[in-house]
Amino acid sequence: MRTAYHEQLDSLTSQLGEMCGLAGSAMERATQALLQADLVLAEQVISDHEQISALSVRAEESAFVLLALQAPVAGDLRSVVSSIQIVADVDRMGALALHVAKIARRRHPQHVLPEEVNGYFAEMGRVAVELGNAAQEVLITRDPEKAARIQEEDDAMDDLHRHLFTVLMDREWKHGVTAAVDVTLLSRFYERFADHAVEVARRVIFQVTGTYPTEEQIPTPR
Amino acid sequence: MRTAYHEQLDSLTSQLGEMCGLAGSAMERATQALLQADLVLAEQVISDHEQISALSVRAEESAFVLLALQAPVAGDLRSVVSSIQIVADVDRMGALALHVAKIARRRHPQHVLPEEVNGYFAEMGRVAVELGNAAQEVLITRDPEKAARIQEEDDAMDDLHRHLFTVLMDREWKHGVTAAVDVTLLSRFYERFADHAVEVARRVIFQVTGTYPTEEQIPTPR
Repeated sequence: MRTAYHEQLDSLTSQLGEMCGLAGSAMERATQALLQADLVLAEQVISDHEQISALSVRAEESAFVLLALQAPVAGDLRSVVSSIQIVADVDRMGALALHVAKIARRRHPQHVLPEEVNGYFAEMGRVAVELGNAAQEVLITRDPEKAARIQEEDDAMDDLHRHLFTVLMDREWKHGVTAAVDVTLLSRFYERFADHAVEVARRVIFQVTGTYPTEEQIPTPR
Repeated sequence: MRTAYHEQLDSLTSQLGEMCGLAGSAMERATQALLQADLVLAEQVISDHEQISALSVRAEESAFVLLALQAPVAGDLRSVVSSIQIVADVDRMGALALHVAKIARRRHPQHVLPEEVNGYFAEMGRVAVELGNAAQEVLITRDPEKAARIQEEDDAMDDLHRHLFTVLMDREWKHGVTAAVDVTLLSRFYERFADHAVEVARRVIFQVTGTYPTEEQIPTPR
């Protein structure tokens, strides 16, 4: 039975990893849709979102079945409980990619972004994909050092987010209030995407060590 | 043992309810701080946030101990798993109140809001408190009808959120980009606060019935 149990747990972990990968590539395509005012791509992200939601439901069910049939204890129990929490974070990452795609669709055929901030969002998209992949890798390898490295990507995202606000507020913003509102929301979506990836990493560290990382190692996203 | 178990589960539910109440009153005070540029109140929300975080940790631990020592099954297992998920939502409600307080503090001694939108935020604050109280009540009573009523409050919040965007975008906004950015973020924080309260209600319905409400009964917050 222990073997069957560990197979089920591995399968649950793979599901979570797959979700991270999907969330990352959804954000990648949403970013392309945004930068190129590409309606087809935006629609694709929106319709593909169903897939992440379905995986969420399946992963939650798998975790529930594991608890019900195997009644795991100690480290094994911790793994399953963390998985349930991780599902919510990755599901949210997918929803944030969906939000970006929806803004791209809403403004089509116009571009959402003034050209001056395109570079920021191209970079935020790049970091988001890396975070999705890194979270997937951390889930599979359970390597605390890799988990800590997610923090660096998150710092990069926070820097971009802060810089964008400087562009919006400190200089002469010439692109009107609508563009400012869109940029504010979009920037917030990317920042939250990164925060959830960090949260996944924190949960994995908890799975492995039984304690959450200290604020110095991986700060709690707020 | 069953009695001890149910006492522990009741105590966990009370902890979650208490967290909802605290999150609601944090949002109430954050709203006052915002509307009156009240630094003392903003600081109070910020320092009190520790209390919600501590309760989150305690509630998670209680749920973990319940799983480890009692290995509940069926409906009881569902209750504990839902509780773990609910902790994350209520913790986030507290964090969103914290965000509002921090914006009030950042702009002090100035008012964050142009007078024209004060009414919207006063109303959003009022709805947020009702949502906190309603979520608490739903947790304690486990009444699906009360849970469905949370949806009405959330609809009210969504309306306010949409109207605010109309004010920002469709009319002549005369208050500059900084105020527009603040209003955008703040409005988003209140909307998310409401979404998490709805999510708590959905989880309670799942606890009671074993299935999530349909989209018509309580739509998934996105």
